[in-house]
Amino acid sequence: MTQPASPATPDASPDAAALEALHAALPGRVSTDPELLRERSLDRSGQRVPGLPTAVILAASVEDVQAACRVAHAHGVPLVTRGAGTGLAGGALAGTGELVLDLSGLTEVLEINAANRLAVVQAGVINAELNARLAEHGLWWAPDPASKAISTVGGNIAMNAGGLLCAKYGVTREAVLGLKVVLADGSVIETGHRTVKGVTGYDVTALMIGSEGTLGVIVEATLKLLTAVTGPTPTLGAAFGSLEEAARAVADVSEAGLVPAAMELLDRPSLDALAAHTGTDAAPGAQAYLLVQTDGVAGAPELEAIAAILSRHGAACSVAADQDEAHKLFALRRELFPSLEGLGGTLLVEDVAVPKDRLAEAFAGIREIEARFGLSIPTAAHAGDGNLHPTFVVPGDEVPEVVWEAASELFALGLALGGTLSGEHGIGLLKRRWLRDELGETQHELQRGIKALFDPRGILNPGKVF
Amino acid sequence: MTQPASPATPDASPDAAALEALHAALPGRVSTDPELLRERSLDRSGQRVPGLPTAVILAASVEDVQAACRVAHAHGVPLVTRGAGTGLAGGALAGTGELVLDLSGLTEVLEINAANRLAVVQAGVINAELNARLAEHGLWWAPDPASKAISTVGGNIAMNAGGLLCAKYGVTREAVLGLKVVLADGSVIETGHRTVKGVTGYDVTALMIGSEGTLGVIVEATLKLLTAVTGPTPTLGAAFGSLEEAARAVADVSEAGLVPAAMELLDRPSLDALAAHTGTDAAPGAQAYLLVQTDGVAGAPELEAIAAILSRHGAACSVAADQDEAHKLFALRRELFPSLEGLGGTLLVEDVAVPKDRLAEAFAGIREIEARFGLSIPTAAHAGDGNLHPTFVVPGDEVPEVVWEAASELFALGLALGGTLSGEHGIGLLKRRWLRDELGETQHELQRGIKALFDPRGILNPGKVF
Repeated sequence: MTQPASPATPDASPDAAALEALHAALPGRVSTDPELLRERSLDRSGQRVPGLPTAVILAASVEDVQAACRVAHAHGVPLVTRGAGTGLAGGALAGTGELVLDLSGLTEVLEINAANRLAVVQAGVINAELNARLAEHGLWWAPDPASKAISTVGGNIAMNAGGLLCAKYGVTREAVLGLKVVLADGSVIETGHRTVKGVTGYDVTALMIGSEGTLGVIVEATLKLLTAVTGPTPTLGAAFGSLEEAARAVADVSEAGLVPAAMELLDRPSLDALAAHTGTDAAPGAQAYLLVQTDGVAGAPELEAIAAILSRHGAACSVAADQDEAHKLFALRRELFPSLEGLGGTLLVEDVAVPKDRLAEAFAGIREIEARFGLSIPTAAHAGDGNLHPTFVVPGDEVPEVVWEAASELFALGLALGGTLSGEHGIGLLKRRWLRDELGETQHELQRGIKALFDPRGILNPGKVF
Repeated sequence: MTQPASPATPDASPDAAALEALHAALPGRVSTDPELLRERSLDRSGQRVPGLPTAVILAASVEDVQAACRVAHAHGVPLVTRGAGTGLAGGALAGTGELVLDLSGLTEVLEINAANRLAVVQAGVINAELNARLAEHGLWWAPDPASKAISTVGGNIAMNAGGLLCAKYGVTREAVLGLKVVLADGSVIETGHRTVKGVTGYDVTALMIGSEGTLGVIVEATLKLLTAVTGPTPTLGAAFGSLEEAARAVADVSEAGLVPAAMELLDRPSLDALAAHTGTDAAPGAQAYLLVQTDGVAGAPELEAIAAILSRHGAACSVAADQDEAHKLFALRRELFPSLEGLGGTLLVEDVAVPKDRLAEAFAGIREIEARFGLSIPTAAHAGDGNLHPTFVVPGDEVPEVVWEAASELFALGLALGGTLSGEHGIGLLKRRWLRDELGETQHELQRGIKALFDPRGILNPGKVF
């Protein structure tokens, strides 16, 4: 197996030389303003790395990105690419000796093509802004991360973003036809196709999706669009006496072949945090609260069939009377993160995913870890796809070792249940110490070989993922 | 960029030594029967390579595959993996000095899991047989290549198989969650997840899908299942006065946001071949015939809306009165390949795909190539996803150079229209000389680097794809 190159190790004064070269190649696009350096060195992980980056490159074109890569490659200086910096796994954190390549200025929507159900956009376009434009054409790009109002299409792709709608509408990987990528040395490749089908060589498009800035810089994407879903979205809230019973109900819904647009599960600690934040307990006395939304022409009978299954599991179901009430129910779910932030301190939002028929065991395991480590771990789940977000709420701004130990147990639990370390947030900086456990030694080495092939000098987001 | 290793070059008598080692490692599973060698050296491309392979390994377990890879790797002997040998691009052709690794004996369905909408199967399971078993559970694996009655799941995955239903239900890539792969040196990796979501490291699953036996041997797959579609499938046949008008109608259907389950287009030469074979002309006097099928709860109004669009383009639409008639209409489409075979000689079935709004230009270009080269190129299309199958019917069993020249023009046409060399058949042996035109030099080299990383001795299906 090919050994990956070591991450670039700074020699005498690479920073100064690189900076000079950058200023020459990208006049007016390179900032060393300390305030900007600080701001663009962070993401939403609540973590940081030591020091400040050398400079921020405010790219406004593909050529800018090429120039930045050429300089970084020539000088062996690490390059951390970022979109809006909304990542939760530390993938866009940057520190001493690193350059930040900011793509938020690449905001052009180059094409919206209804006949081919595709759009071509630059990486820095905001997900929600794109979707607002697509809606005018009756079109929709399905990836729906919680961050969609502020996160970029390029960031969504680099992370293979998920969200609430994946069981029915797929993850980002299913919504990308092709990419324009600037490689580490500044050269450009175009991957994939403008067609639904295409099998010419290896699927480098998929390889780039979820690669977290370590293989190349995604500057442009050809997106696969769906017809916008219109009409009512029948919605219910179901209160359960036990979390495990709610989890079993979710598995039964799936087994019955029913695929709601979204199915969100909140545990008691999450409901408590929401109550403290909003003043209202959504499901007083319940141990779990399940929100279900359907859509499309069969939405109403589907919701009815789902309600029947939930009721058999002892749930008290309350169907939203109208779209306004439906909207309010899901708006509550979106308040969870702010509610947990309202508890004070630092949040470590975990992201394991398990097969749906193991959800009950996952929740039981989380309760056991809570008890063993003396921690509270409020947990919400995109239950429709088995993706759990157990969240550690840590006083202060440092994550103590006991929390990492508990997180480690959590990952082991997810893997033991046939699941994965990360459903949608990625590995970034925070989970790399567990990656080998999931991939196995042979595949881990192979993946490092892929990294070395694409980035022989190790300048692209070094220290992340691996 | 890392240079790929050269394909293994046989030394003194590698065949004899390898054969001895194979017999020792796999007693009773290695055949040198000339009849079997001949049969298992071919696929459905109508092509062959010189000589016969050294042996056929009739693998019956993952361990058998590992043993075969270890021997081939140690001795530097090429290994051509095959399922049912139904490929159309020559990807499974084997000749002098090569070993055939036959996976058709890996036929276990290891798990069918309704709650998680997944199945775990060995590579040699036949697509249609799997789907018959899944249907008992109300489940469905969507990949639907024309060969489904005889092709294997492993082969479908290795080729990223398509078929008639891809615009609505996706290609094979969208229907695979994870893989067990034996690497060139006999080691095993498990890629992907049992969950809908998962972003841990690079998407090696997608990298393997469509890799045509050049990166590893897919021995087991975790498949993503859908709920079986039941109920009526409203169907129509539409006769058009011109092929270009039919193509424009297809683009308008797509632009209107209507996604039929299948939409198949036949040109006049295809209709003529069908008439000669079946005794009935499906659309007398028409220049093009479009078959459309919808499904699901909204199937009937969708077909009505589609019929209205087709009629606006001058089509004479005839809606099937019942399911029996619907079935007969699509059964006709499935007779096309036998009908073309019935014309005698060799078929070279091409496979370009273009964006749907360029279909009319694609057909016009094919007519122009026909005229320029003095050839007849009957063309059918999976019109719903822009995938055309222009077919050269060649007298005798050698493809003359003029046909390759015409094919070359056809590929250039597809690329010029923003399309791809191959929608679903793959590159194999037949299209590798054009691959670089589509990928570009930089990406072509990068892909060869991936090949070299996974298969440093170049033993896995050498000479195919690249």
